[in-house]
Amino acid sequence: MSKTPKPRNAFYAQSGGVTAVINASAAGVIDAARRHRKYIGRLYAGRHGIIGGLTEDLIDVGAETPATIRGLRHTPAGAFGSARFKLKGLGQNRAEYERLIEVFRAHDIGYFFYNGGNDSMDTALKVSQIGAQLGYPVTCVGVPKTVDNDLPLTDCCPGFGSVAKYIAVSTREAALDVASMARTSTKVFVLEVMGRHAGWIAAAGGLAGNGPDDPPQVILFPEVAFDESAFLARVKGSVGKNGYCVIVVSEGVKNADGKFLAEAGTRDAFGHAQLGGVGPVIAQLVKERLGYKYHWAVADYLQRAARHIASKTDVDQAYAVGKAAVEYAVRGMNGVMPAIIRKSGKPYRWKIEPVPLAAVANVEKKVPRDYITEDGFGITAACRRYLQPLIAGEAWPPYRDGLPAYVRIKGKAVKRRLAGDYRI
Amino acid sequence: MSKTPKPRNAFYAQSGGVTAVINASAAGVIDAARRHRKYIGRLYAGRHGIIGGLTEDLIDVGAETPATIRGLRHTPAGAFGSARFKLKGLGQNRAEYERLIEVFRAHDIGYFFYNGGNDSMDTALKVSQIGAQLGYPVTCVGVPKTVDNDLPLTDCCPGFGSVAKYIAVSTREAALDVASMARTSTKVFVLEVMGRHAGWIAAAGGLAGNGPDDPPQVILFPEVAFDESAFLARVKGSVGKNGYCVIVVSEGVKNADGKFLAEAGTRDAFGHAQLGGVGPVIAQLVKERLGYKYHWAVADYLQRAARHIASKTDVDQAYAVGKAAVEYAVRGMNGVMPAIIRKSGKPYRWKIEPVPLAAVANVEKKVPRDYITEDGFGITAACRRYLQPLIAGEAWPPYRDGLPAYVRIKGKAVKRRLAGDYRI
Repeated sequence: MSKTPKPRNAFYAQSGGVTAVINASAAGVIDAARRHRKYIGRLYAGRHGIIGGLTEDLIDVGAETPATIRGLRHTPAGAFGSARFKLKGLGQNRAEYERLIEVFRAHDIGYFFYNGGNDSMDTALKVSQIGAQLGYPVTCVGVPKTVDNDLPLTDCCPGFGSVAKYIAVSTREAALDVASMARTSTKVFVLEVMGRHAGWIAAAGGLAGNGPDDPPQVILFPEVAFDESAFLARVKGSVGKNGYCVIVVSEGVKNADGKFLAEAGTRDAFGHAQLGGVGPVIAQLVKERLGYKYHWAVADYLQRAARHIASKTDVDQAYAVGKAAVEYAVRGMNGVMPAIIRKSGKPYRWKIEPVPLAAVANVEKKVPRDYITEDGFGITAACRRYLQPLIAGEAWPPYRDGLPAYVRIKGKAVKRRLAGDYRI
Repeated sequence: MSKTPKPRNAFYAQSGGVTAVINASAAGVIDAARRHRKYIGRLYAGRHGIIGGLTEDLIDVGAETPATIRGLRHTPAGAFGSARFKLKGLGQNRAEYERLIEVFRAHDIGYFFYNGGNDSMDTALKVSQIGAQLGYPVTCVGVPKTVDNDLPLTDCCPGFGSVAKYIAVSTREAALDVASMARTSTKVFVLEVMGRHAGWIAAAGGLAGNGPDDPPQVILFPEVAFDESAFLARVKGSVGKNGYCVIVVSEGVKNADGKFLAEAGTRDAFGHAQLGGVGPVIAQLVKERLGYKYHWAVADYLQRAARHIASKTDVDQAYAVGKAAVEYAVRGMNGVMPAIIRKSGKPYRWKIEPVPLAAVANVEKKVPRDYITEDGFGITAACRRYLQPLIAGEAWPPYRDGLPAYVRIKGKAVKRRLAGDYRI
């Protein structure tokens, strides 16, 4: 082994929409950093992610108790605060990157762990590049996280397995409800799920049943243009045959013109259209055209925060990518992301391997056509084989007084070293 | 003990909206009936509840395997099929009651166990009365069930504890999500919950937090007329102080004129207005008046079918009322319902005692004013003391391949003995 350099501090930030297991990745980073004190001095976290980095609002992770760190493994959402804040391209806003490097320099930060999705992998890569340009090299490692499961090169994304389990369980449960009541009441139930451009979460609804007539009888994917008449025929057929129809619809379903079926009209900080409400749109269509009594549910944040029904596989993988990120960094690997590699499907075995951020950034992995049945309304056996191991295993959080005992960080601020406020 | 009469058959029916634990009550009835073979011969269940009784579509419960019966304790929704079908008053439609007695007579049914809410307790009482009038006495015992928790005389209703736990857990989880993101994204999150006329389920959301600023910062009860300006001030205050605001809103919230804030305009078989959609209405109001970015969720059937997060207390009580119903019946008690009596709050101890159906039927128990804080937006310590034991304990179903292994009944039909079809 080469001569050990002087330890440098590390910066960890959570980015974008949170998940049931992003804090498990944080725990992986924290635990591994503690095991590599020769390389990593103090570990700081950005309060509200990269915003904490830019505004020099750093959290001293070392001030948290061991019980809190252990608790992160079973606590959903972003314990350190996340942010929907995308650093612009270097050409458009070089100042933001320079500011981040300024903060890093002030706190002797030599490692940057960015826990996010496509956009964040791109940012991590750019920070690595500009650090080098400014003569302040920072080892930047991405830590994958996204419920959308749309990162390339990794078999799956931490966060996805748990939302997939939530949707599969919820669909199975709601379908039993609808089947019980269909004789005299609701015939069509619509569950709207997340997945802006990729239908992985909607696909997971397909795990609720096994046989061809099992619910959900219809899945609507963003990858398949909505065909109203084929859809209505399918719903009618299911009600005729089974007495009811359960529909799982992705928020990102588009019509043949590529327009979202339900578009709220507002946009988030990344410039993405803010969606929500395709569930009632679909339910209303069924009611108007077929006359069936309907109910609809929109799981929204409930699905991605549902640590109570997290997949053990997902929790383990989330922790593993956090740990691996630190191990890569201390070995001097820069601009990489730990990816999950499927070694075998049955029995399910996986390992972690580094992939270059440049190959991950801004690439979206959609549900391949051969994972969707020919009619466009269901998942194939290949899709089921892919998804099933990802929801396997239960990882119950501890309970107190009937409720999961989630932890909150102390969040002790690191003393500022730079003068003046930085406005974002 | 008096001389044992000749065993007679029993009829069990599920009624109204299903719950996560109504099948546990069925298991209680089935297990107890098997222990009282001297009194109860065969146990039949109505396919789709009372409709199965009227149409002579009876399920032979004895044909189910012991594994299936055990599985009912952990399977949500109505395994035998439920129905939203209210028998009209005796004056309006005596023929329906006479038909039911005709079917009972044809199958030597001497016991009727009706598993439902207010309306069903009324029906069970009427069946008992008309049986006596027609010279065919039937011992009718109600088995309480309603997620709405609105039955009088019983401390709580089986089904409620589990939906309460689901809502409390989901609110806690979603609130962590919102708190993580509020710096740059969603500031107001709205969760719409069930509870048409009584705000018990909404109140349960209040268990998610403890301190005065803990989420949910706002609960909207059907018992409190919606005061728009007070509501908006409260939301604004919470966003100012906490950075975000979590709102739990009952589907049954009404304005000062007593009109539902969101009324779909359709009515169910009981003549109740079909609701759904007050969540987006509230979210939109916040957006328009205060400009905050919002998200909303409508849990709908997910909440009442969520056996995966059922309260152990609720499962135990659901089973106990089913068992007690049979024990009352074989002791010759007619027109009663097993009620849950709270013996002590801390430690929580309860017992089952019979109450007359006449005192239960069509009476609605709302959330008392002293369970709601003076400002109308939260729950008091007394409410918390009442609710907390009801969500206590976990009762995980078994899992297979990452999903709860719920059972399905074989549903073997009992041979018909009456000629001709009966149309309902």
